[in-house]
Amino acid sequence: MTNDPLRRVGICLKPAQPQAAGSARGLAKWLTDRGLEVVLDEDAGDAVGAPGVPRAELGACVELVVVLGGDGTLLSVARALGSRPVPILGVNLGTLGFLTEIALDELFAALDRVLRGEHRIETRMRLDVVAVRAGAEDPAARFLALNDAVLTKADLARMIDLETRADGDIVTTYHADGLIVATPTGSTAYSLSAGGPILLPDLEAFVLTPICPHTLTQRPIVLSAGVEVEIAVRSREEVQLTIDGQAGTTLREGDGVRVRRSPDPVHLIVSPFRTRFEILRQKLQWGTR
Amino acid sequence: MTNDPLRRVGICLKPAQPQAAGSARGLAKWLTDRGLEVVLDEDAGDAVGAPGVPRAELGACVELVVVLGGDGTLLSVARALGSRPVPILGVNLGTLGFLTEIALDELFAALDRVLRGEHRIETRMRLDVVAVRAGAEDPAARFLALNDAVLTKADLARMIDLETRADGDIVTTYHADGLIVATPTGSTAYSLSAGGPILLPDLEAFVLTPICPHTLTQRPIVLSAGVEVEIAVRSREEVQLTIDGQAGTTLREGDGVRVRRSPDPVHLIVSPFRTRFEILRQKLQWGTR
Amino acid sequence: MTNDPLRRVGICLKPAQPQAAGSARGLAKWLTDRGLEVVLDEDAGDAVGAPGVPRAELGACVELVVVLGGDGTLLSVARALGSRPVPILGVNLGTLGFLTEIALDELFAALDRVLRGEHRIETRMRLDVVAVRAGAEDPAARFLALNDAVLTKADLARMIDLETRADGDIVTTYHADGLIVATPTGSTAYSLSAGGPILLPDLEAFVLTPICPHTLTQRPIVLSAGVEVEIAVRSREEVQLTIDGQAGTTLREGDGVRVRRSPDPVHLIVSPFRTRFEILRQKLQWGTR
Amino acid sequence: MTNDPLRRVGICLKPAQPQAAGSARGLAKWLTDRGLEVVLDEDAGDAVGAPGVPRAELGACVELVVVLGGDGTLLSVARALGSRPVPILGVNLGTLGFLTEIALDELFAALDRVLRGEHRIETRMRLDVVAVRAGAEDPAARFLALNDAVLTKADLARMIDLETRADGDIVTTYHADGLIVATPTGSTAYSLSAGGPILLPDLEAFVLTPICPHTLTQRPIVLSAGVEVEIAVRSREEVQLTIDGQAGTTLREGDGVRVRRSPDPVHLIVSPFRTRFEILRQKLQWGTR
Repeated sequence: MTNDPLRRVGICLKPAQPQAAGSARGLAKWLTDRGLEVVLDEDAGDAVGAPGVPRAELGACVELVVVLGGDGTLLSVARALGSRPVPILGVNLGTLGFLTEIALDELFAALDRVLRGEHRIETRMRLDVVAVRAGAEDPAARFLALNDAVLTKADLARMIDLETRADGDIVTTYHADGLIVATPTGSTAYSLSAGGPILLPDLEAFVLTPICPHTLTQRPIVLSAGVEVEIAVRSREEVQLTIDGQAGTTLREGDGVRVRRSPDPVHLIVSPFRTRFEILRQKLQWGTR
Repeated sequence: MTNDPLRRVGICLKPAQPQAAGSARGLAKWLTDRGLEVVLDEDAGDAVGAPGVPRAELGACVELVVVLGGDGTLLSVARALGSRPVPILGVNLGTLGFLTEIALDELFAALDRVLRGEHRIETRMRLDVVAVRAGAEDPAARFLALNDAVLTKADLARMIDLETRADGDIVTTYHADGLIVATPTGSTAYSLSAGGPILLPDLEAFVLTPICPHTLTQRPIVLSAGVEVEIAVRSREEVQLTIDGQAGTTLREGDGVRVRRSPDPVHLIVSPFRTRFEILRQKLQWGTR
Repeated sequence: MTNDPLRRVGICLKPAQPQAAGSARGLAKWLTDRGLEVVLDEDAGDAVGAPGVPRAELGACVELVVVLGGDGTLLSVARALGSRPVPILGVNLGTLGFLTEIALDELFAALDRVLRGEHRIETRMRLDVVAVRAGAEDPAARFLALNDAVLTKADLARMIDLETRADGDIVTTYHADGLIVATPTGSTAYSLSAGGPILLPDLEAFVLTPICPHTLTQRPIVLSAGVEVEIAVRSREEVQLTIDGQAGTTLREGDGVRVRRSPDPVHLIVSPFRTRFEILRQKLQWGTR
Repeated sequence: MTNDPLRRVGICLKPAQPQAAGSARGLAKWLTDRGLEVVLDEDAGDAVGAPGVPRAELGACVELVVVLGGDGTLLSVARALGSRPVPILGVNLGTLGFLTEIALDELFAALDRVLRGEHRIETRMRLDVVAVRAGAEDPAARFLALNDAVLTKADLARMIDLETRADGDIVTTYHADGLIVATPTGSTAYSLSAGGPILLPDLEAFVLTPICPHTLTQRPIVLSAGVEVEIAVRSREEVQLTIDGQAGTTLREGDGVRVRRSPDPVHLIVSPFRTRFEILRQKLQWGTR
């Protein structure tokens, strides 16, 4: 993580959100009042009527990014930052998210702590995902995933066959709607809907969660983060690879995906107002049925 | 079900199956030797080098259909027969299926019982599935489903919203990968992989099984067969309607599907060699872990 | 169901509930003001300082029972009424239940409808549960279950073996923590926690839900209400039979339980204020994650 | 793990197993022929008619233990060895287990590798489980668990409340039949039947799996092995604490359990004949439905 002194702060905005522009303006003024330089991304620039820079360039010119939006916006910002270790503060404009765990009315109190250096940063493991074409050596595409890499059938209503290896050993060939490789961060996203367990963020592990497997005993498997997973398409149907629900490519029979821990985690500023478990209890309605 | 005396027997074949042609020839000879007339479908005709009729015409000219193939072949034959109440004998050329529950080496013993009138027929409920376009009155498409009607996202990696009603009352709006409406027959197919219960074939009911629902408490719901279910697409993503994994159409926002019990069940000749539970135990490996 | 004119109303109370006594007094006055005779059960009598009759005698001397309590109180009242077809109005003193679906502040509006004959009654199927000792002919015990009959291990941390038949055919031998036979009414109680589906109340069916089965493919099975289920204890550990979480007996190796539909359903007065699905949505927090 | 040269080998036997005595005699002869000293446990001594020592003393006088039995026998031997780092070779007399993954006819080939130093040892994490009485400081009981620590209701058919903390933070209060804390080794035992994920043996983690939780969204949670878990009984019903399905104690309201990683893992000699995944595929029947 960067140890550079905090001089410039990026603001990323979820577009077409009612209170977004006002929030961005208020935030920019608050930061400027404290002698900090503000850099807007293009969506934030559009919203407040000021110049903005592409998100992909933001990582090179700020020491902190504030995301005003939802978990999807934060996932997209994290991907745009790539390997730059810029800390992210996620502020949710709607209901709290798993990643954007700070409410709008908590924003300035949270930023105050950051300015005083009293904040806590969690490094969230990411997946380095490489797609390889059948017979080819070079990667066809490469992605960083904060939540998950998902392989699903592109052709409708047919199962696909995904031969899966861990450090070279065959795990099994899943005959299923698809397969999710999720980080601890992603374990509360799609993987949870598919029946996967919750992995706490500091766990050095990821989880393989099959989607509607034909074999009912093929349950989610939790692996050490050091394991390299390879998945090869073994059926004729097209397979869609999707990263964090946002990017991806199409695979065909014989193509494969190699997943391992990325050396570049995301640096999330943790909410000082609630524990990880309070967020789980709130999001999953524990305490009620 | 037909009470006509048995004079003509149709043979339907799964194409490109190694032992299919030989089995079809042996079956045709066995039937002819017993004074019965044999009518081949086109796939069977191609395999044995004899004329065949389209499956859709078969229902009008035979009093029994023997299916040599797997569950998929039988589903396709049942759809082709439409509302014709011709009994079907399902013979599996590979491992036993839930629908093709007679093995190849049991075929003649099973047919002997049919000729002597000692067989038992199960009527299997089907769904009458109507797709309706937004704002339109007339059905855009209509299907008979023996296993299931499935609505899934066509656009990848995005959940869809499916507003669901039972006899006019709102059940819920599923935010999910999709929704399965399965008959008892279909409860051991896709619905089981998606977490649905097993419904015994004689149950007058069907089951709504959401696929990877975002709301974890949205569990499968079993409804009386007399209930009419309406499902409306409430998200902008395209939705695919698939019938028995084989037919279907594409739906858009505002389009809907109406599902109710069809007055035309399928008439399956039940295996005299094993109970329903023996088939479950064998297919689902009960007794082992 | 009784067609007798409504002259006497029973009041059953959950003891040790803060607002129970006041509610019972208010209800008694409201009924008396309208010329109806009030009969208290013993708990209600204790609470308001008036004479009460045992619940088991209530069925013989009233044409309507109002339950002030929770689902547990209503289950106990239903069992005490036995085969008497007295309608029950369930009023929840705390959060709404699946059975006590009328809130305290809706009570008089609901009763008004009953007096005008504008209420709707649902007949809820019950199980007739008979325990039989090994080698004996006569039932050792007999129970009426509105929710469920549950067999669980009494000896701790050991699985039990339960050989299960449906109309004489062996279903399987469950090697599990236990087995639940639930009515549609009971499908949203313990069975739901054990992974069972939701059965709508008017379904003529019940569900066999194994508890933590060793064989992962042993999924809940929904059977027609006309089927007779027999369960025999096949392991040496003691087995506990529990009815509606409240009554029961202990079983040993060779002992068995026979479950079939009781000819005596419960007559529940349905809330005029919300549909079955609204109750499900509210209780299971659908619409939230 | 011990680096002492291998001179003495312990043999532990599952009693009352048909082929056990013959296997133990054959093994003892094979070892003696190779100049090794054999020490029998009491069950092995009884079976072959020779003197045996208590399992608890075995750890002090051998450099290797061979277990002839099933997973249950190996769990019991591991507990008896306590903190002694003696490697264990598990040989299954029946069908392969997750822990006893060497078949009887592979025994001598596996031992040959051990003698040549060509074997591989896996260290399997254990739980240090401490039971504390309400108000007391000192532990009431202390256990080493290789598979799991399980808290379940002792009073039948009532849920229990278990307030659970991780490193001091409240996770949630489970209202459930019970709660399992499982190691990776135990993840394929009881936890799997209760809906838990599979954790590979080298993962530095454990999993909290609630048993039939009333709140349907309380899904299994995987925690880093470094986390300390505290569970307090918050309901009046008696709670049973069970270790590896074999030992334990009874808890009451206010009593608690503290679980953390034990510094003393078990040293298992890994089968050279099949990978971890082959064992999973075989035990869970992957490849079939």
